[in-house]
Amino acid sequence: MSRGYNVAIAGATGAVGEEMLKILEERNFPVRNLRLLASERSEGKKLQFGEEKLKVEKLTFSSFKGIEIALFSAGAPISREFSPIAARQGTVVIDNSSAFRMDNEVPLVVPEVNPDALRSHKGIIANPNCSTIQLVVVLNPLHNFTRIKRVIISTYQAVSGTGREAIEELKEQIHQWVYGEKIIQKVYPYQIAFNVLPHIGEFSSYGYTEEEWKLVNETRKIMEDERIGVTATCVRVPVFNSHSEVVTLETEKKIEIEKVREILSNSPGIVVRDNLKDNIYPLPLMCAGKDEVFVGRIREDISIDRGINLWIVADNLRKGAALNAIQITELLIKDGLI
Amino acid sequence: MSRGYNVAIAGATGAVGEEMLKILEERNFPVRNLRLLASERSEGKKLQFGEEKLKVEKLTFSSFKGIEIALFSAGAPISREFSPIAARQGTVVIDNSSAFRMDNEVPLVVPEVNPDALRSHKGIIANPNCSTIQLVVVLNPLHNFTRIKRVIISTYQAVSGTGREAIEELKEQIHQWVYGEKIIQKVYPYQIAFNVLPHIGEFSSYGYTEEEWKLVNETRKIMEDERIGVTATCVRVPVFNSHSEVVTLETEKKIEIEKVREILSNSPGIVVRDNLKDNIYPLPLMCAGKDEVFVGRIREDISIDRGINLWIVADNLRKGAALNAIQITELLIKDGLI
Repeated sequence: MSRGYNVAIAGATGAVGEEMLKILEERNFPVRNLRLLASERSEGKKLQFGEEKLKVEKLTFSSFKGIEIALFSAGAPISREFSPIAARQGTVVIDNSSAFRMDNEVPLVVPEVNPDALRSHKGIIANPNCSTIQLVVVLNPLHNFTRIKRVIISTYQAVSGTGREAIEELKEQIHQWVYGEKIIQKVYPYQIAFNVLPHIGEFSSYGYTEEEWKLVNETRKIMEDERIGVTATCVRVPVFNSHSEVVTLETEKKIEIEKVREILSNSPGIVVRDNLKDNIYPLPLMCAGKDEVFVGRIREDISIDRGINLWIVADNLRKGAALNAIQITELLIKDGLI
Repeated sequence: MSRGYNVAIAGATGAVGEEMLKILEERNFPVRNLRLLASERSEGKKLQFGEEKLKVEKLTFSSFKGIEIALFSAGAPISREFSPIAARQGTVVIDNSSAFRMDNEVPLVVPEVNPDALRSHKGIIANPNCSTIQLVVVLNPLHNFTRIKRVIISTYQAVSGTGREAIEELKEQIHQWVYGEKIIQKVYPYQIAFNVLPHIGEFSSYGYTEEEWKLVNETRKIMEDERIGVTATCVRVPVFNSHSEVVTLETEKKIEIEKVREILSNSPGIVVRDNLKDNIYPLPLMCAGKDEVFVGRIREDISIDRGINLWIVADNLRKGAALNAIQITELLIKDGLI
């Protein structure tokens, strides 16, 4: 650590925090000093970064002195409490929580989609929700070709989206099942092993969950089009990592399937995996650990004239969280916005 | 076994066949003699029926002599070969395969939806596909209130829909994972444990799978409305039993959510489980072994004016297969059609 930026990770011991650490290293991010912050519970824990072992410090109001970039992934209450303080003293905060996403003063950014939104930042930039990021990476190039009028999303979301304790819960339930023990749930209201739960986030207005509202509202904000109709049903599945989505689109003008394939194949951050004869389609098990958003099952929605069906899969801890936050940071540096 | 009918089950050792045996017993179906038929491989195997152990016989062209009712669940090729022969000699065949479902001469029946279609039967009656049955039980009462114009379905289908060998595959993969062994796939093209596969049935025209076409075509035939727009994406999930479906509807006239709840609550074969505050929604683990189709997450599709979102779960071996076939048979008896 020498040239570069003083970086802090708030929530360093979480599933996303750990991924941030990995990605900073993989991408040779210009780190001068790295400060790992977490709750008191994790104080003193050591995490590997390159060849060093860094000690986790307790997050306090003075944690951000001298810090130029802070990556927050410690939940909305922590972000609400600490990131304005960090921003006020000159730290640029990239916040992975939902705390500021819908704040008009805060850009909500996916670098492939709305990089220019970064120019107006006031110290806090929001990283969108995992299920939204992989969606808009794919929608945006199509939207630029012909306006998308309506989007219907059904998700198949991995337990890593809930956090480390949910990964452990699935593992434990699987072991309990194999050993014939009583299956215990703590994180989810029902058993997640061998089950699917149509319930992600708290229930909110109109019978939608918070996760479903995020898909509705964040998609419109990032794509800068409040008229896009969005509805969603979010479902947790017993998969460790990578979210999958069935997406049905209605476009303003007819767009041929071959054109959809061409556009997506030539768009940044997307890999098209779509060859049915050879059983080629994206799978969560295969997308885990990858940076791109994967698309397959590209075909007409035969129930209407201008409809398209897609199957979209991405690593929710990487592109859906840690990677997107770090890509935002790289873009801030490149454009001289830090 | 005394009064009643001479019944045969073709495919008695399969996952659906075994469920048929169970349901005949549970419902005190009027069986005089029960003949269990399967391939040579299962010949001589014994299956419990009530207090008797019945020997499985090899299915041959002469298996149906004296048989009044034959329940077929041994795959489409077997149905194509044997059921016309059985029907020609006076056996009424209820066929759970896809062999005759789209045949204009063959009624495709869900008793709650189109019982009258049975009146024109010519010896063979088709039992619809699992994912279609649970869908139309719910769509039909709404369709009777105001025409459904379009249906979009994403499925979360259990491995039992593939058959006994797929149930074993999921079990084995889970054990291999726990014991740190190499995970082996034979039935599915990719690992199903901790994964989801957007691929059910062979790939067919327009990039749809056969399972997806079944939802399109069977729904229209059973609901006797060729104009309903249907699109579907069928996904296998690591759940042992019970299929779940996210369903988005567009209706001709606006229908209030409270009205949807009222209609579904008062319709045969449906249980509404929809109380978000108490985390009440249908789950595959809880619907396994039940007869009804369960609906929850009933809410507006906020992306259009006349849209409804639903979450539909049912035991695919029971209502999705064995139970529906036996309910058809009971109706045939009641209406003097056998």
